[in-house]
Amino acid sequence: MTLEKLSQTYIPAIENGLQNAVASAAGEGAHELSSMLAYHMGWEGEGAGPAARGKRIRPLLVLLTTAAAGGAWQAAIPAGVAVELVHNFSLIHDDIEDNSPLRRGRLTVWKKWNVAHAINAGDSMFTLAHLEILRTQEMASLDVTLQAAQVLHRACLHLTQGQYLDLSYENRQELGQADYWPMVNGKTASLLAACTELGALIAQADPATRQSYRQFGQSLGLAFQVQDDLLGIWGQLELTGKSAESDLVAGKKSLPILYGLSQQGKFYQRWTQGPIRADEASEIARVLEDEGGRDETQRHADRLTRQALQALEDAKPSGEAGAALRELADLLLKRQA
Amino acid sequence: MTLEKLSQTYIPAIENGLQNAVASAAGEGAHELSSMLAYHMGWEGEGAGPAARGKRIRPLLVLLTTAAAGGAWQAAIPAGVAVELVHNFSLIHDDIEDNSPLRRGRLTVWKKWNVAHAINAGDSMFTLAHLEILRTQEMASLDVTLQAAQVLHRACLHLTQGQYLDLSYENRQELGQADYWPMVNGKTASLLAACTELGALIAQADPATRQSYRQFGQSLGLAFQVQDDLLGIWGQLELTGKSAESDLVAGKKSLPILYGLSQQGKFYQRWTQGPIRADEASEIARVLEDEGGRDETQRHADRLTRQALQALEDAKPSGEAGAALRELADLLLKRQA
Repeated sequence: MTLEKLSQTYIPAIENGLQNAVASAAGEGAHELSSMLAYHMGWEGEGAGPAARGKRIRPLLVLLTTAAAGGAWQAAIPAGVAVELVHNFSLIHDDIEDNSPLRRGRLTVWKKWNVAHAINAGDSMFTLAHLEILRTQEMASLDVTLQAAQVLHRACLHLTQGQYLDLSYENRQELGQADYWPMVNGKTASLLAACTELGALIAQADPATRQSYRQFGQSLGLAFQVQDDLLGIWGQLELTGKSAESDLVAGKKSLPILYGLSQQGKFYQRWTQGPIRADEASEIARVLEDEGGRDETQRHADRLTRQALQALEDAKPSGEAGAALRELADLLLKRQA
Repeated sequence: MTLEKLSQTYIPAIENGLQNAVASAAGEGAHELSSMLAYHMGWEGEGAGPAARGKRIRPLLVLLTTAAAGGAWQAAIPAGVAVELVHNFSLIHDDIEDNSPLRRGRLTVWKKWNVAHAINAGDSMFTLAHLEILRTQEMASLDVTLQAAQVLHRACLHLTQGQYLDLSYENRQELGQADYWPMVNGKTASLLAACTELGALIAQADPATRQSYRQFGQSLGLAFQVQDDLLGIWGQLELTGKSAESDLVAGKKSLPILYGLSQQGKFYQRWTQGPIRADEASEIARVLEDEGGRDETQRHADRLTRQALQALEDAKPSGEAGAALRELADLLLKRQA
């Protein structure tokens, strides 16, 4: 309830900031460049609308953390906008790198325009993020602003390192559970850790509190990803029955799959023989479950969830925003699909 | 002479800064990511060596401007390294967007690895630039550092706008001289303007001087590009005789070509009939010259060169670095090939 109430104030402020940033990409004769970004954000073009937009979880985390740590949420708007721009820049480029034609049921930017335009549009969105984070100085000190920029850029570097690992695994013969953590740390957890650290930084929280908030974001990101990996195999089958969408068929390097490969058993043998077909996904999921892949993944999900909630309590979030932050964590960590 | 002397001090400092930045891209298991960047920079892999590296003109401009404006050149090293990283990030992505297999006689990053890795490697290099510019605070105030980051990010935004125009011209039927300026302002002049503005900013030059230096970089960039366009048609033919490398055959949207299209005469008619073959490049160059394309382009080159040199004098560059800056401008503006 508190989360819903605060979201009704925070989200429009974020959306407004995002729209102003994206509009500024339109230089002389380059209006279409801004349109590409507006299309990707779900504001323009075919299929535009609420369903085409993201949930803005990252900026929400930034603003809630600032408020829960005793700061003014308004001061965190540029940082919130910046992380959402970074997230969306990475989606535009990831869609090219993964050769994905669709995102949220709509053509991806590279599919609607072309690869060259999509690379450049992503670069433009990335640049807008860097300009936006500097606007933190409008309501915070120069020192806080520079630290915020540094936190964001470091997360971006981790993002590219995680993406490198993901891409490099395509051609690696031997993969195991140990290859999982650096990849998801970079691809998923680093930006969420930056969100909560930025929130605490802008509230000028003391170093220990800032570290607890960072840890919360980091563990939340990992826990969320590991849960997603569970759902990607057993959730799809049990809840939707769509085995065609199983991570097994997509060949995704998820935790249960990498765990299964480490076991070098039946699952490993089948996996190394070539792509898994939709009609055998249920059976292979059972093999993987028998070899311990589901339990092992669930153990990690539980451990990381405990870590995230503990770090959040260590940070002592206060007031309405603190309650909303707990609510958001529960929502993200207990979801079923 | 002064330029050569100062370069011998400045260039190794820049090279050292670049190498440290690129090395930091190697995260856990991501050593190869750093190798891709080192390969592109001409330090590693097949064909590595001085010829594979750029001339580092942009960082040289930054450091010389700082010194000529009365500052310590060492304070400008992070800014110099950052602009060179931005320049090289844009080359990695441009090579994908232009489908270019070679750069300085070596395979481009996308050709040597693949498109996905090259997009991500470019993103990584871009991020290193943003981290680097923040290091300006090690020898300058927080205020100067934030302004420096803003100057750099704005130039990056212009870069993507210029690149958008270049890409969008591929599918435009009607193009003319007016389409030239916003494209080269974004693609070439904006980063050079940022170089000299950054140099003046770090030297804490007064606003008028900073503006003169910025204008110098801007006009220098345009003058250089327009000269390059002249050489791209008549230089190739007269100096090297290689008509196959003519901008006419490459279909480049250079100033003389866009001027020729504006005339809607014989050149325009031939151009609209399809790609120009190497064996007719000499003849078409003569048609374009007869229609005034060469004179018009030369007039712009002369005008922009005067503007650049005037802006440099307005900035009153002093000392050895001032002399070296004049030398560098002369070198760039009077080159023959």
